[in-house]
Amino acid sequence: MNEKYCIGADIGGTTIKLAVISTEGDIIKKWEIHTDTSNHGKNITNDINYTINETLEELNIHKESILGIGAGAPGFVDTSTGYINEAINIGWKHFDFGVELKDLTGLPVWVDNDANLAALGENWLGAGRGVQNLIAVTLGTGVGGGIIANGEILNGANGTAAEIGHMTVKTSGGASCNCGRTGCLETETSATAIVRKAYEALAESPDSLLAGFDKITSKDVFEAAHQGDEAAGKVLVEVIDTLGLALANLTVTINPNKIVLGGGVSKAGQQLLDPLKQSFKNYALPRAAEACEFEIAELGNDAGVIGGASLVKQYH
Amino acid sequence: MNEKYCIGADIGGTTIKLAVISTEGDIIKKWEIHTDTSNHGKNITNDINYTINETLEELNIHKESILGIGAGAPGFVDTSTGYINEAINIGWKHFDFGVELKDLTGLPVWVDNDANLAALGENWLGAGRGVQNLIAVTLGTGVGGGIIANGEILNGANGTAAEIGHMTVKTSGGASCNCGRTGCLETETSATAIVRKAYEALAESPDSLLAGFDKITSKDVFEAAHQGDEAAGKVLVEVIDTLGLALANLTVTINPNKIVLGGGVSKAGQQLLDPLKQSFKNYALPRAAEACEFEIAELGNDAGVIGGASLVKQYH
Repeated sequence: MNEKYCIGADIGGTTIKLAVISTEGDIIKKWEIHTDTSNHGKNITNDINYTINETLEELNIHKESILGIGAGAPGFVDTSTGYINEAINIGWKHFDFGVELKDLTGLPVWVDNDANLAALGENWLGAGRGVQNLIAVTLGTGVGGGIIANGEILNGANGTAAEIGHMTVKTSGGASCNCGRTGCLETETSATAIVRKAYEALAESPDSLLAGFDKITSKDVFEAAHQGDEAAGKVLVEVIDTLGLALANLTVTINPNKIVLGGGVSKAGQQLLDPLKQSFKNYALPRAAEACEFEIAELGNDAGVIGGASLVKQYH
Repeated sequence: MNEKYCIGADIGGTTIKLAVISTEGDIIKKWEIHTDTSNHGKNITNDINYTINETLEELNIHKESILGIGAGAPGFVDTSTGYINEAINIGWKHFDFGVELKDLTGLPVWVDNDANLAALGENWLGAGRGVQNLIAVTLGTGVGGGIIANGEILNGANGTAAEIGHMTVKTSGGASCNCGRTGCLETETSATAIVRKAYEALAESPDSLLAGFDKITSKDVFEAAHQGDEAAGKVLVEVIDTLGLALANLTVTINPNKIVLGGGVSKAGQQLLDPLKQSFKNYALPRAAEACEFEIAELGNDAGVIGGASLVKQYH
């Protein structure tokens, strides 16, 4: 057998997801292990090496058939070396992860941040399959982004390309962001933002259907709006209009073939997409808008490991 | 002699600028011819072929030493084929320029839009020398942009990448733009915008120094502000703050090593740069801002031909 395989690893604060994927895109095995964040995450590299060896043995795949490991971590990564500047949830700071994993496993290693790998995953086997220019947006607790341009991930000068959650969309009166500023896209359009705005709307309109929820989630806000609740509807109009504007401005910058929306908020499907496309159209250069399709992400939690494997496939 | 040369051609509405440049970056000859826009610009390809042949003969350079021609035009270009969708100032519409020039000259031809080539020119021999990630902004009658990411021009899905003049920066009450919308970066921060806003300011403050100019130019507005004129100063504060916001949002998208500012407005130098950097810092993710230096463009009107030659050097 001459078949070659790539390993993807998606390192999160709670679990490390892994997959062995053939260069044809067949997922041979997907599994996960616990993330040991004790001792500043010092055991993680060992744990990854151990579980990979164990799994390859179980699958009866020789290490010579493995082209490499593509790993993602939530943080700022020097992609040329795999050096992690900081990955807060994992406990890493100034950690030479790429080199350590390469030395331990004896395999080539590529590292990038998780949002970029999710974009690459959707670009290989998901909703953004095969396009040369793609913006992937994750609307969850925060707002993450990954950009593929000319078929390659944009990392930029120091790994902050595609940090679209930190586009400034409100120059005054915006909510505080983890980044130390205010009015970021993340503070205005994440699931967290939707919930915050829903509570504000409820305080002004105590009769809103939102009063019926014990602890409001962004899903509840979409549900209430769907049932015709005015307060919930207004929250979504504002959030979606802000998102449409940001995506329009990204579109005259990147001119993507596709924008892929993932994360919890994207589960609203057409209830999100229909008004979003309308706002986008209002704010986007017509010729750029024409070229751009919207899709809901397909790979869910697998996007990261598939993106990791894709990184290996692309650069080995 | 084994020396190889690239030809750059920058096709504008009035003149066609050309240059023969060695692969080392030595400009062997620079010249220009009149742009014959009669008959929908049908003679232009012939004129370019003629002047190139004549010049190579004069320079005693054989065609075998020419790696190709890199040509720029103001409009939407299919860079894979050199097909011009539309270049209004020149009279071209649905014109297979790249193929025609290649057939006539017998040389490989690459075509891109003029703003992208200006970025590439500054990236090769100008203010953005050698960086992998660069945003070039031209602040003139309009606002043009060119982006280099991962060392390559961003063209996007249909040639509208880096059309940053059409970022929406005012969602209501913005001035009308050529693109059919309102509130574009171009309508708020171009030289034209500065002049329009200056006349509005003068109408409100008839005692302003701006009253002393026969026909106000953007240079006059900088001059009046420099002399302490309040109305002129307010115009510039507003314009520069808007530009700083747009560049900050571009910076968390592209994460450039450098932003290079060209065009007439950039001649204001530090009077533009100092407040611009401050606004930029207010709106940009700190880690992305840290990586980014501002520069005034160095190549002036030569940026396009040098960029054209760079295109040949990069892709031949």
